Amino acid sequence: MASSSERAPEIRRDRVFNRHIILSPARARRPSDFKSKSPANPNTPSPTTQCPFCIGHEHECAPEILRFPPNTPNWKIRVIENLYPALHRDQEHNLFPNPNPNSPLSLVGFGFHDVIIETPTHSLHLPDLSPIGVADVLLVYKERIDQLRLHQSIKYVQVFKNHGASAGASMSHSHSQMIALPIVPPTVSSRLESMKAWFKETGKCGLCDIGSEEVLIDESAHFISVVPFAASFPFEIWIVPKEHCCHFHELNDEKVVDLGGLLKFMLLKLSKQLNDPPYNFMIHTSPLDIGASDLPFSHWFLQIVPQLSGIGGFEMGSGCYINPVFPEDAANVLRQVIVV
Amino acid sequence: MASSSERAPEIRRDRVFNRHIILSPARARRPSDFKSKSPANPNTPSPTTQCPFCIGHEHECAPEILRFPPNTPNWKIRVIENLYPALHRDQEHNLFPNPNPNSPLSLVGFGFHDVIIETPTHSLHLPDLSPIGVADVLLVYKERIDQLRLHQSIKYVQVFKNHGASAGASMSHSHSQMIALPIVPPTVSSRLESMKAWFKETGKCGLCDIGSEEVLIDESAHFISVVPFAASFPFEIWIVPKEHCCHFHELNDEKVVDLGGLLKFMLLKLSKQLNDPPYNFMIHTSPLDIGASDLPFSHWFLQIVPQLSGIGGFEMGSGCYINPVFPEDAANVLRQVIVV
Ligand SMILES: Nc1ncnc2c1ncn2[C@@H]1O[C@H](COP(=O)(O)OP(=O)(O)O[C@H]2O[C@H](CO)[C@@H](O)[C@H](O)[C@H]2O)[C@@H](O)[C@H]1O
Ligand SMILES: Nc1ncnc2c1ncn2[C@@H]1O[C@H](COP(=O)(O)OP(=O)(O)O[C@H]2O[C@H](CO)[C@@H](O)[C@H](O)[C@H]2O)[C@@H](O)[C@H]1O
Repeated sequence: MASSSERAPEIRRDRVFNRHIILSPARARRPSDFKSKSPANPNTPSPTTQCPFCIGHEHECAPEILRFPPNTPNWKIRVIENLYPALHRDQEHNLFPNPNPNSPLSLVGFGFHDVIIETPTHSLHLPDLSPIGVADVLLVYKERIDQLRLHQSIKYVQVFKNHGASAGASMSHSHSQMIALPIVPPTVSSRLESMKAWFKETGKCGLCDIGSEEVLIDESAHFISVVPFAASFPFEIWIVPKEHCCHFHELNDEKVVDLGGLLKFMLLKLSKQLNDPPYNFMIHTSPLDIGASDLPFSHWFLQIVPQLSGIGGFEMGSGCYINPVFPEDAANVLRQVIVV
Repeated sequence: MASSSERAPEIRRDRVFNRHIILSPARARRPSDFKSKSPANPNTPSPTTQCPFCIGHEHECAPEILRFPPNTPNWKIRVIENLYPALHRDQEHNLFPNPNPNSPLSLVGFGFHDVIIETPTHSLHLPDLSPIGVADVLLVYKERIDQLRLHQSIKYVQVFKNHGASAGASMSHSHSQMIALPIVPPTVSSRLESMKAWFKETGKCGLCDIGSEEVLIDESAHFISVVPFAASFPFEIWIVPKEHCCHFHELNDEKVVDLGGLLKFMLLKLSKQLNDPPYNFMIHTSPLDIGASDLPFSHWFLQIVPQLSGIGGFEMGSGCYINPVFPEDAANVLRQVIVV
């Protein structure tokens, strides 16, 4: 039974996504009669010789879009087409009429699906790079988004990273992905609606003042990192620009370098505290075709989610997540983790 | 590269949840350099002697709420309190004021979290029961919801089942769960909004005419089973009452028996086709305190999701799922699976 010192459960609502979550420390103690709840697959890489993302194996990959630095065989970062793309990049002219004449609810699968290879070296992972090395990866995201924005039909670009098999990764070589969509996807629409409602109600952007002392982990010149007040996952981290800004791709060089350092630092803290957990990160930005003046309520940020345990039918059905770790406690722990 | 016979990707929007999904057969063929993407834990049960859900072990469980049949040691189904509840049932009188006086976004963690033990026998799983046996489990859900409805502060009851470790289950003995909430959770609010908008636009309930020939798997006297037009997951199944009805708990005895048979049949088909996959099912109903006359647009249904592969950062960030199997194809396969 619950020890008397255990904190009582609490229901919180996240003002950015307008989602309820349940904080419930008791849930962490439930037993399992399945052998192990640990990740199915460790994060360990396979032999380098078989990896198409390694330097020297460029010919095993789908076509390259850009490399950094440009025009050198000694690349540090490559953006390539995904060989098994979710969407087809050659269908822009076929967008209308839709393929399912019986339904207004379908659209040709047009879009861009790219892979960003973050390092030529198989054994390195993103936070092993220097702060500038991490910043270069972010700069490459920006450069590629600036290309994708030129397509009138592209409404939103989702940048994301899967690290470790339990976070969905199928490739172990350090990489991230980018999917450019001809629609504004569901979570983005509801996030914008929610932040708009918050703005109407309070006159303020819901992310400009998110960094209360309790949940703050760290800050750099231009960014803060917090465990959000209504985190869906234990040790979830948000990195938020201090200055109001709706689009990730508006980042300037100085801020990119600053962000690279803080992102590296947060990934190292998670890795140390949670023993190299599988994780995802996602950049939450705004639709491309809406200008900053129309988005006083929308503020981009980067969300990092360590994958410590799966979800079940409750979360799938209700959209309400159960988090056994209070955000204040997670922030406190992460503040104190020392990385060198 | 994609074979020429492979169907081109398509983007579809689900009218019930107002969510986009991407259908992309090419995704199914991508390789993985992690050792195995198969479920971390098989669905195999541990030795019966250690299971608190088995008959004879009632004293190892949290308190019983009801049993079926009542007043007999030879029970077939038991509803018990969850020993590690997400919410506390004794906090109803503490709901106001909220525990976090600085924030209008938090609430005491009041609610009910119950476990439904579906059989006294460890080796049996839900679809191994007779159609009437499955119907009895559904009747017990209804009976318990009828008790929970008496609490004015309870706004919604989420019924769900986790089968297999990769579907989140921590206990292998056949069971389901029910969480009664003092809020209407996020996915339910957005489902109601979406169905209301569809109703306004078309004058029809979005689920009354969901069963087009293409996606139909089967039907009984009172229910149809389909793979929804914009399924988020491969081989996802919805069981929908033919007659418009907003609340699951309004089900009468005749319909419960009919549903029990169809649910068993669908679970057997999935098990045979996909080799006893881990899965979740969820009952999507309406908030308790809204009457049928105010819900011409809301239609309850049961969603079954086999867990064949995980998700990644794209789905977490965008809310848009990538499904490699076209719903028409999945329905066609499931129609043809023969179970005895
Ligand atoms: N030689 C080659 N050249 C170019 N590209 C190559 C390639 N070999 C493989 N690829 C691509 O490289 C990507 C590697 O991506 P990840 O490891 O991050 O996860 P993946 O996209 O497989 O799926 C995870 O992320 C997606 C999106 O979130 C989820 O849908 C899914 O369930 C989850 O497992 C794959 O998309 C693959 O198609
Ligand atoms: N002796 C006993 N008496 C009474 N109850 C007992 C008990 N021993 C264990 N229990 C309870 O029995 C339940 C069994 O539930 P499941 O196997 O369906 O998944 P669980 O709830 O653990 O988590 C899955 O489902 C939830 C909700 O979807 C997700 O949050 C989570 O991530 C996922 O793993 C547990 O909730 C546990 O607390």
